[in-house]
Amino acid sequence: MSGPLKMSGVLSPVITPFNADLSVDTGKLVRQCRWLMARDCGLAVFGTNSEANSLSVDEKIDVLDALAGAGLDSARMMPGTGACAIPDTVRLTSHAVKLGCSGVLMLPPFYYKGVSDEGLFRAYSEVIQRVGDARLRIYLYHFPQLSGVPITLGLIERLLAEYPDQVVGIKDSSGDWGNMEAMLTRFPGFAMFAGTEAVLLKTMKAGGAGCISATANINPAAIADLAANWQAPGAEAKQEDMNKLRTIFQALPLIPAMKAAVAHFSGDAEWERVRPPLVELSAAEKAGLLGELEKLGFEMSGLSETRAA
Amino acid sequence: MSGPLKMSGVLSPVITPFNADLSVDTGKLVRQCRWLMARDCGLAVFGTNSEANSLSVDEKIDVLDALAGAGLDSARMMPGTGACAIPDTVRLTSHAVKLGCSGVLMLPPFYYKGVSDEGLFRAYSEVIQRVGDARLRIYLYHFPQLSGVPITLGLIERLLAEYPDQVVGIKDSSGDWGNMEAMLTRFPGFAMFAGTEAVLLKTMKAGGAGCISATANINPAAIADLAANWQAPGAEAKQEDMNKLRTIFQALPLIPAMKAAVAHFSGDAEWERVRPPLVELSAAEKAGLLGELEKLGFEMSGLSETRAA
Repeated sequence: MSGPLKMSGVLSPVITPFNADLSVDTGKLVRQCRWLMARDCGLAVFGTNSEANSLSVDEKIDVLDALAGAGLDSARMMPGTGACAIPDTVRLTSHAVKLGCSGVLMLPPFYYKGVSDEGLFRAYSEVIQRVGDARLRIYLYHFPQLSGVPITLGLIERLLAEYPDQVVGIKDSSGDWGNMEAMLTRFPGFAMFAGTEAVLLKTMKAGGAGCISATANINPAAIADLAANWQAPGAEAKQEDMNKLRTIFQALPLIPAMKAAVAHFSGDAEWERVRPPLVELSAAEKAGLLGELEKLGFEMSGLSETRAA
Repeated sequence: MSGPLKMSGVLSPVITPFNADLSVDTGKLVRQCRWLMARDCGLAVFGTNSEANSLSVDEKIDVLDALAGAGLDSARMMPGTGACAIPDTVRLTSHAVKLGCSGVLMLPPFYYKGVSDEGLFRAYSEVIQRVGDARLRIYLYHFPQLSGVPITLGLIERLLAEYPDQVVGIKDSSGDWGNMEAMLTRFPGFAMFAGTEAVLLKTMKAGGAGCISATANINPAAIADLAANWQAPGAEAKQEDMNKLRTIFQALPLIPAMKAAVAHFSGDAEWERVRPPLVELSAAEKAGLLGELEKLGFEMSGLSETRAA
């Protein structure tokens, strides 16, 4: 069966820059994506950390077109496409496949809670059948803390049995290592991406595919380096270093904190904008964050060059 | 300030009939809406029980147009319009206002959890400003069990202070009578709809506006009668009777159970269809439900006449 290769390594759920009217600043996003790709990160645009669920399907299609139009390599893209309504998921997924994205990251429908595995199986089936394209590669998105709809081992098993060519991996953002380990053991070849680089070394040692992590927006080169060189000496120390940085961000509202850091290191305050219901960091939070980063001697190299001429 | 009158009484979050390809059967929905209105129920189309979050904005706009095109009175409509993404909420809300709907029922953006009242205030503000229509009347939708995003008393207070003409009421589906009572006490004139008829008499006695309840799809005439005649003798007995019926449905997955009942009493099995991630009742569940309804001597009068000729 021909089609995109299975994805691996580190992907960034790229944060989304907004104009003053809260529309997406696609030019700025393209430059940020280039900066990330130059640091060996793939593009999980439209992730949770992209505020993707605050964008309409039309907006997301326009953004994908802008990224492709700018010549970014769609083989390195895994856009998030899962919505509450199947027609929305199908529309965005079809568009991503048409543009040549190697995969899509798919939340289950997440409004109705307490739904059965049978219902979720039917939801994914319906999407796969309606998209109807042999190039479709789905990475399931397990994030029960936000979606409220867990993807169980039983559901994965059933999807793998029915759609072995289409359902090829998962991003596990539960933070539950036991669950990640169980998937790696039970489903060999299934591409398991951890939802945080805090368990990246562990993930690579256990045969995982890599990680798709918020803070890959902040620390992409180091995280990608560990994913590539996890068997080399010094891996443990690298893991510890990146954990220190991660901890600083995790103590704050994560998305606004990452945007504040990118605003600071790029010298472009417009990066601080978020869409409601999110709120930017307070002045005190921001000062605290930047102080912590300075103590660590951390900076985002090359970011200031991403500013528009 | 001119504009729609404040809504009151009983509204049904109308269940949505689907064709074999899962598209909305608008003809059947129109007939169901007529049946409900003939029983003094308003139309809270696109509620949770309408599987509205499984429909795209385009589908919902088409359905609204079909209802208006069929001559249904938009003054009796309170469509649900709240989505995760502000552009979606704005688009559907604007359309509802343009069609003359007396109100809209608005979920907060519900993907991101643990958001602040400030963020939710900004989200509602943004919608109100973008819709920019003096006829807009918002009924907030508090359903923390499904949305994961509660609407606090503090948020309501702030919205009422800033948008007294636009933010006029709430549907409280939390089931927490203490919260409903607190709103009635603290915000006189704010139209509080209980999310279940189980507390309808209590709600009316405490000065509430009425109820918007799933089972108003099943038992509309009796519920509307109690809302209209809560001060008349026999109200307690009426309340107890409707509670018995409600209890039967609440013991099952509510939406599929209501659809099974409507399918049975209308003689139209197509009503049983749900969109994934929901699943229709099992044969055993359905037999149990119909058996319970028979024991109660319950039937849905006039429903079989809603079938297409």
